[in-house]
Amino acid sequence: MLNEIDYEKFFCEIAGRLNEADDYGKVADYIPALAEVDPDKLGIHLTTIEGKNYAFGDSNERFSIQSIAKVLSLTLALKILGDEVWQRVGVEPSGTAFNSLVQLEYENGIPRNPFINAGAIVICDILVSNLEQPKLELLNFIKKASGMSNIDYSSEIADSEKETGFRNMALANLMKDFGNIHNDVDSVLDLYFHLCSIKMTCKEVAQTFLYLAAGGINPITNTTVISLKRTKRINAIMQMCGFYDEAGEFAFRVGLPGKSGVGGGIFAIHPEKYCIVVWSPKLNEVGNSYKGIKILEAVTTETNSSIF
Amino acid sequence: MLNEIDYEKFFCEIAGRLNEADDYGKVADYIPALAEVDPDKLGIHLTTIEGKNYAFGDSNERFSIQSIAKVLSLTLALKILGDEVWQRVGVEPSGTAFNSLVQLEYENGIPRNPFINAGAIVICDILVSNLEQPKLELLNFIKKASGMSNIDYSSEIADSEKETGFRNMALANLMKDFGNIHNDVDSVLDLYFHLCSIKMTCKEVAQTFLYLAAGGINPITNTTVISLKRTKRINAIMQMCGFYDEAGEFAFRVGLPGKSGVGGGIFAIHPEKYCIVVWSPKLNEVGNSYKGIKILEAVTTETNSSIF
Amino acid sequence: MLNEIDYEKFFCEIAGRLNEADDYGKVADYIPALAEVDPDKLGIHLTTIEGKNYAFGDSNERFSIQSIAKVLSLTLALKILGDEVWQRVGVEPSGTAFNSLVQLEYENGIPRNPFINAGAIVICDILVSNLEQPKLELLNFIKKASGMSNIDYSSEIADSEKETGFRNMALANLMKDFGNIHNDVDSVLDLYFHLCSIKMTCKEVAQTFLYLAAGGINPITNTTVISLKRTKRINAIMQMCGFYDEAGEFAFRVGLPGKSGVGGGIFAIHPEKYCIVVWSPKLNEVGNSYKGIKILEAVTTETNSSIF
Amino acid sequence: MLNEIDYEKFFCEIAGRLNEADDYGKVADYIPALAEVDPDKLGIHLTTIEGKNYAFGDSNERFSIQSIAKVLSLTLALKILGDEVWQRVGVEPSGTAFNSLVQLEYENGIPRNPFINAGAIVICDILVSNLEQPKLELLNFIKKASGMSNIDYSSEIADSEKETGFRNMALANLMKDFGNIHNDVDSVLDLYFHLCSIKMTCKEVAQTFLYLAAGGINPITNTTVISLKRTKRINAIMQMCGFYDEAGEFAFRVGLPGKSGVGGGIFAIHPEKYCIVVWSPKLNEVGNSYKGIKILEAVTTETNSSIF
Repeated sequence: MLNEIDYEKFFCEIAGRLNEADDYGKVADYIPALAEVDPDKLGIHLTTIEGKNYAFGDSNERFSIQSIAKVLSLTLALKILGDEVWQRVGVEPSGTAFNSLVQLEYENGIPRNPFINAGAIVICDILVSNLEQPKLELLNFIKKASGMSNIDYSSEIADSEKETGFRNMALANLMKDFGNIHNDVDSVLDLYFHLCSIKMTCKEVAQTFLYLAAGGINPITNTTVISLKRTKRINAIMQMCGFYDEAGEFAFRVGLPGKSGVGGGIFAIHPEKYCIVVWSPKLNEVGNSYKGIKILEAVTTETNSSIF
Repeated sequence: MLNEIDYEKFFCEIAGRLNEADDYGKVADYIPALAEVDPDKLGIHLTTIEGKNYAFGDSNERFSIQSIAKVLSLTLALKILGDEVWQRVGVEPSGTAFNSLVQLEYENGIPRNPFINAGAIVICDILVSNLEQPKLELLNFIKKASGMSNIDYSSEIADSEKETGFRNMALANLMKDFGNIHNDVDSVLDLYFHLCSIKMTCKEVAQTFLYLAAGGINPITNTTVISLKRTKRINAIMQMCGFYDEAGEFAFRVGLPGKSGVGGGIFAIHPEKYCIVVWSPKLNEVGNSYKGIKILEAVTTETNSSIF
Repeated sequence: MLNEIDYEKFFCEIAGRLNEADDYGKVADYIPALAEVDPDKLGIHLTTIEGKNYAFGDSNERFSIQSIAKVLSLTLALKILGDEVWQRVGVEPSGTAFNSLVQLEYENGIPRNPFINAGAIVICDILVSNLEQPKLELLNFIKKASGMSNIDYSSEIADSEKETGFRNMALANLMKDFGNIHNDVDSVLDLYFHLCSIKMTCKEVAQTFLYLAAGGINPITNTTVISLKRTKRINAIMQMCGFYDEAGEFAFRVGLPGKSGVGGGIFAIHPEKYCIVVWSPKLNEVGNSYKGIKILEAVTTETNSSIF
Repeated sequence: MLNEIDYEKFFCEIAGRLNEADDYGKVADYIPALAEVDPDKLGIHLTTIEGKNYAFGDSNERFSIQSIAKVLSLTLALKILGDEVWQRVGVEPSGTAFNSLVQLEYENGIPRNPFINAGAIVICDILVSNLEQPKLELLNFIKKASGMSNIDYSSEIADSEKETGFRNMALANLMKDFGNIHNDVDSVLDLYFHLCSIKMTCKEVAQTFLYLAAGGINPITNTTVISLKRTKRINAIMQMCGFYDEAGEFAFRVGLPGKSGVGGGIFAIHPEKYCIVVWSPKLNEVGNSYKGIKILEAVTTETNSSIF
């Protein structure tokens, strides 16, 4: 069926329709590197597990993938620690704003899931505990999983995040008070800020996360990234928790597991079929790409291809 | 692939394993009709969209389906009112205990989703506004959708629910204060308590909800219950919100959309494949059947058949 | 010192200053009887424990005292049940909006104090349990305590409250669910709505509550209303909880124990000195008389007569 | 009247009664300096504004006054900045546990009052902004206010607090994120931890805070510490917010403004009469000295000397 759809033409048509619609949303501006991005950028890329590629617009321009990278740190932590990870972080949707301290306090420092900031910080703490050179080894894992050797941290972005990261500092210290951060707060946040600083193109994101559509194996490099069983569970968590306080809306409208970042990127996967990535920097109220969600909704609705 | 699995033998084996495990959970006892149920009952039924049936144990004994029925009232409300429903109830997971008033108050009387009690009460209010004889017409819809003419309310259960339903009374009055209940509270709750009073066997539940696995059409009677598009959205909501505060855990362990009830029943569907129903009255801390979830986890994990 | 102050002249001067200030606030309008009040009414009355009276403006016009009456129901409940009252209601400030359900749910149906709506409803439940003719006996107690035989409920106001009282209905049902309402919800709320319907003039309020300034004895009629020890405790609770979410601000600015109502009335007492009453219908954001607080602040600040 | 009471005999009798009662509570143990204190220490000291002293037990042994010192930093901040202080911190009771982040987040980084940890940290931030040598100048102010030149910080305690102060670190960073901390977090917390490290005897505490009973003037040294108007407002805030989540209970039982610390000390003042100090290290569930409150309750109840 996929072969029958001319995705590039389809993307073009959807993008055209959206251009005529109201111009909504606001570029993340809490650090200069994000604020300076051209708000009108729009890239789409779909890669099938058979290796076909469909591109549109600015899909070959690198952007800050931000929280999208949290799927990679989770994957590595699960490889290292297995189900022990779930003693330190939950798998439930947060049901509140994406960096709220409220639930964290009520639930004694155990973050609801590994994709809210608090949860991703705990995952970084796990990596710091288990890796000798956390930043280097995490980057190497990402390079291997994606099959791309030129992925790198942006120290400019990482430094900016650190300078304004008072809320993440608050989260990490609160969890340390509850005993759920084992290492020095500064070194854990250093890894966290670097993780969020990675830049990729739409195409690179699509190829990086194709393993989640292909049962844990990167079909381009034929590398096993993680087991089938864990792949399905990562997908389930993305479905439930990948879009901050809008996870239900995303499941309802798009119907695919995925993850967004405040850089305006979103990726979603259709198991056994494809990985699709959209990048449009303007965000809606809860911090997800406004046009990104519209485009993904159009794609899955008009092709009746959600997983539901 | 389904044809290759001997589900009946598989169910038997899983049930055997569970019997040896620790006996956990507590039967719902807030009304006599639930409290009197034999806690050791165990029924499983799977119906494929091709009409094959696989049964185990007490699968032909009727039990109180309770909140499972909320999927039927939602389906009918969507048929009547379409997307206007979403102006009065959300599609986000609740992130707190299943009958909490907290979020309802913070969010001005708009329930998070149609499966928490408050949301199901709003759906009943919609039905009361739009049907001349709400109880009769809802029952007729259920009979037609399921293809079974002998489904009925249990007035014994409905009366018991009413006598102890102070929290639902509180929810309905709070929403009325916010303007989100349009009819008389008593008549809305009368419909709600009757909806929750329906009794079915595992087999009957499986056949009733088979339309959600078959794109909106009951494949047994060939009746169109609701459109494909709406079917996919109901499934998405079930995935995100069908298991109270354990929706993430259910997605993670089982990986299918579904809905549970405090009578100990759970159904889950695999789109384009099957509907599976389990009934075991002992509930875990959040109100879902303890063994029911264990069995569904074993089925999808061991056959690698989750949607993710 | 009191003898040295010409309060009437002082009131006149303060009122004059306030007239020149910005005209702020909004009359309560959820029931017709409150909405129809002339927003520019202003009455002040101070009665000393020696029986001296100082009046200003509309101090002889009756208004709906609303929540002010909750001090009388608490006094009667304490006379009947003594410290057992505190097993069913707390003495802590609420720290949130005056009719929030949130804390009530977190704290298992035990209201934070007897002056928030939930707490006053529990007090009414205690009276219903312990009196044969609750409405009649409560009214008789108020007549005796105040020394005024023509105090009465306003059935017009009570009926209006009932028709719009969905939130109080929600509170009562929630507490009934927690087991903290022992009687039929309707009969408890009937007493509650009647309690809040009482109308008095500023002078009548001052004479009614003079017992709280005089160690529990109404010095005009020489009737013992309640013991000295309990008087001090009622005053302490008024200080901590008498002004919804503005109790700290009132202590800070005015520095006297007191109680307000949404009818725009406030009374405050200075132990061993006087009871002062202000009535001005326009309310600030948290539901206290805007000018009332300004006037009381001027009186105690300029005479350095707060209890602190 | 005070002259008629033989307080020393009275203290002795109360202490005797309490010894026979159940031995309740738990010494604060989060830092070694507190954990090592003999739990059975008991000191009481009352100083009248005329300079009479009544002592009992271990009243001349120094203990860590902890949060009691927050009254001194508030007094100094009010002297420096006047009512501008109230733009950065409120005067309402917190209504939740004493170091909760929840309200702080809901209320956009403005702490409810200057005595919860967050509020005291904001006060320290104000001092850091306005003093050239904050630690030295604050200490000099305390020496002058108390008339005692040998008061000092305990660097042992300050260092311990810092090492375990993750929650205060979280609070300060959260407020910095909201823009309500203007200086470097580390330097603000350095002042805060030193403030809390001061050690005094019961007698020294009584003499230090006597100005709050004497209209702002230390009657022993005849030094004006702060104006009468501000004195009354500090007392009002102590009444409303001086005892964490037990302020209502303290007003109800004791009926005096005061402040407690986790070192087991409590002071309370009776305006125009006296300052009373109790020290007993075992704390109740909310962090106030268990015996301390019992003793103060006995003193004011049996002498009918609460301010209400």
